[in-house]
Amino acid sequence: MKSSLVTGLILSLSLFSGVVPLMATSEPLKSDPPNIIVIFADDLGYGDLGVFGHPTIHTPNLDRMAFEGQKWTNFYVAAPVCTPSRAGLLTGRLPIRSGMSSDRRRVLFPDSKGGLPQSEITVARALKGNGYRTAAIGKWHLGHLYPHLPTDHGFDSYFGIPYSNDMDKVEKTDHFTLAEQERYQAYNVPLMRDKEIVERPADQRTITRRYTEEAVAKINEFGKDPFFIYLAHNLPHIPLFRSSEFKDESLAGIYGDVIEEIDWSVGQILEALKQAGVAENTLVVFTSDNGPWHTFRTHGGTAGLLRGAKGGTFEGGMREPTVFWWPAGIKPGVVRDMATTMDLLPTFCALSGTELPSDRVYDGYDLSPLLGGTGKSGRETVFYYRGQQVYAVRKGDYKAHFITQLEYGNPTAHPVTQPPVPLENSATVLETPLLYNVNIDPGERFDIAADHPEIIAEIRDVMEAHKASIVPVENQLEK
Amino acid sequence: MKSSLVTGLILSLSLFSGVVPLMATSEPLKSDPPNIIVIFADDLGYGDLGVFGHPTIHTPNLDRMAFEGQKWTNFYVAAPVCTPSRAGLLTGRLPIRSGMSSDRRRVLFPDSKGGLPQSEITVARALKGNGYRTAAIGKWHLGHLYPHLPTDHGFDSYFGIPYSNDMDKVEKTDHFTLAEQERYQAYNVPLMRDKEIVERPADQRTITRRYTEEAVAKINEFGKDPFFIYLAHNLPHIPLFRSSEFKDESLAGIYGDVIEEIDWSVGQILEALKQAGVAENTLVVFTSDNGPWHTFRTHGGTAGLLRGAKGGTFEGGMREPTVFWWPAGIKPGVVRDMATTMDLLPTFCALSGTELPSDRVYDGYDLSPLLGGTGKSGRETVFYYRGQQVYAVRKGDYKAHFITQLEYGNPTAHPVTQPPVPLENSATVLETPLLYNVNIDPGERFDIAADHPEIIAEIRDVMEAHKASIVPVENQLEK
Repeated sequence: MKSSLVTGLILSLSLFSGVVPLMATSEPLKSDPPNIIVIFADDLGYGDLGVFGHPTIHTPNLDRMAFEGQKWTNFYVAAPVCTPSRAGLLTGRLPIRSGMSSDRRRVLFPDSKGGLPQSEITVARALKGNGYRTAAIGKWHLGHLYPHLPTDHGFDSYFGIPYSNDMDKVEKTDHFTLAEQERYQAYNVPLMRDKEIVERPADQRTITRRYTEEAVAKINEFGKDPFFIYLAHNLPHIPLFRSSEFKDESLAGIYGDVIEEIDWSVGQILEALKQAGVAENTLVVFTSDNGPWHTFRTHGGTAGLLRGAKGGTFEGGMREPTVFWWPAGIKPGVVRDMATTMDLLPTFCALSGTELPSDRVYDGYDLSPLLGGTGKSGRETVFYYRGQQVYAVRKGDYKAHFITQLEYGNPTAHPVTQPPVPLENSATVLETPLLYNVNIDPGERFDIAADHPEIIAEIRDVMEAHKASIVPVENQLEK
Repeated sequence: MKSSLVTGLILSLSLFSGVVPLMATSEPLKSDPPNIIVIFADDLGYGDLGVFGHPTIHTPNLDRMAFEGQKWTNFYVAAPVCTPSRAGLLTGRLPIRSGMSSDRRRVLFPDSKGGLPQSEITVARALKGNGYRTAAIGKWHLGHLYPHLPTDHGFDSYFGIPYSNDMDKVEKTDHFTLAEQERYQAYNVPLMRDKEIVERPADQRTITRRYTEEAVAKINEFGKDPFFIYLAHNLPHIPLFRSSEFKDESLAGIYGDVIEEIDWSVGQILEALKQAGVAENTLVVFTSDNGPWHTFRTHGGTAGLLRGAKGGTFEGGMREPTVFWWPAGIKPGVVRDMATTMDLLPTFCALSGTELPSDRVYDGYDLSPLLGGTGKSGRETVFYYRGQQVYAVRKGDYKAHFITQLEYGNPTAHPVTQPPVPLENSATVLETPLLYNVNIDPGERFDIAADHPEIIAEIRDVMEAHKASIVPVENQLEK
């Protein structure tokens, strides 16, 4: 692997001193560093893929990928909404550490001035420093102004919509009532190549197909060079669009059409890897940024047996259907260990022999022992943040909710997820936390707090120790 | 295939006259009739297997079986409780046609005198008449007195508990509080071999293992002769038991232990078929009798994203996780067509070249075109009975609920499945039925009745025509 400025910088720092909780024992499973592709859906629910239990959405490519690779069933995101979730994935750190979460504005908007700070080291920057070629495709949502764009953060190229596909709304009309050809024009979102806007409004009717074509072109362009592709679909975030070939093809309505096009896209990418002769040593990770947006009813997905949805800290908001695929390096099976998107950066660094600086706290763990079936990752906890507050903590089998709040809007929009006592629209600090064994009771149906005050006390200690590790930084979402 | 009395009887009747809606076009996919094994779980929920979305219950054998064979995601049972569901499977007819459903006693009990009438022709009797060797193993629950036992109904042998494992209760103590060695003794259920009781109380701690050993022994005994094995596990019906090897092995608690032993059992059976050299032409069907028993909280399963549970007519009560496996005759994939356990008898008859009499109404359809990927079954409707009443009807994508009722007991025991307006403990005839598109909205969350009165009218016509086909018969459950 060729050297670079970043690698030099990293190597000049003393390693393994201080607070770094990762890079412990594992070594890369293969001598050749793998190519890496992350496919990141937007607002996909835990229950929206066939292999995760959806009865009618047809996802044969992801189903096969899960069977040939690993299906991860306790895989979490860093936050239940878009911007902080993406910041967590790309930095390996909780978004509160980079200023990328807020209690007032939950995500970045077109009028936002802030974005992911240059002081952060993204997956792309780390791998690029170790000789990888890098490409970002799709939704960014970590700042659309300089110096916050993908090409400011270690990606050699960028092609995509820099934030959510429901922004820059020019029509007040409810998009559900518009004809499709007018509908995409109601959202004046830009489509960018590198730093330039190349289309506005982006024609979202073909966006999934065009992202896929870009990914396939990059695979062919990179050839035998090691590469990292971050493909973040704008969909199935509302408003929903799909190419004409997928229109009304799904049994599950327009939402099903959209997921089936994403599944097709996955199949195209795996096929391109095979055609390019690099499939064997390419690690492909599929997951999503947060749970389904229940507010939009049948235009939103389902969290399956999990309670809750996008925006909230019950499992449905933050546990995602996740698949790892890597013919040369993975032991096929179902992995039920806890993991998060923040673990991807340390995992990719471990697999590629990329060192990380010791001047910052990482919240991720190296998953490579789990990929190879040789050991554990060391992760014992998951923190469920809403904005800058810890609402819940999972430690092992047990999850305690210290604060609860309705995800979004009207509770009658998603009756299935309502507990016996409906959640409030404002944050409610619980006198006695809710406690669930989420391995036995993944649906968070049976509160066992009364039986286990000692577990709540233990989890509270973990939470307080964690909170003490947070150093205030400039908030990027409120700029 | 050798002839027999039943075959002779069947052949003497004129075929395809009158009301028989099956045996239409398909021919057996293979010239050799397949061996057939039905594995029938008890109270397994739609969401309780890995490949149907459970995150922690580990079912690698069923997952692989689904990937190698067909995963059926719209597969129903004939009734949401035990006795009528089993009558439907074994006769290919709605239980109301055989007197095996009742509004007063939902299942047979140890004091019941009735059972499946001799006038019914079971799968076993039909196949035996065409030269198959037959064995019933496990729970029967279609009458434990003469002439209602398996060996009175076409099975060459029987080994099992003739009704539910929570019957013949000798202790008033809540079984949850008993030590395991005392717990099985609290249920004085008999274990029978053919017509004799061989153990009482049946030691349920080893019952799944012993049923499995019996099935493996039968596979080896039958050798190259065509055979039909009906293996109906008593579990995961409460009280829960599992062999010592599975105790506390699952991440998902005792319920997970029980399912993982059943999954092990499936693996043993497939392995035995391979060892015996008959795997290639053996059709194995896995399903369950009804949905999870939510009343028992973590000792009951989960219906996944489906609403409702055992005892009720929402999807969770009657849609089951179903797998078909048959190396020589199946096109692997996910089948999303509607089907029911009542379709098994006509399917098995079609595949084996067994004729059916034309003197009775069948409610089943031949599924062999779907198994081979060559066509459809012809099924367009599903009737959701509770006792002798039609509560709901599905036609294509749409399901209308004409009557609703709480499944069992206290609604707070399963808050997740509660709609905005809780169900009543007694039957409520709805002035305006609930209407769902269950392909788009499998969780029955979004009532669209107000938008589609014409669909409700159409489904109501279907229901009334169906009701008119029901001929009153002697009730067996109230004897």
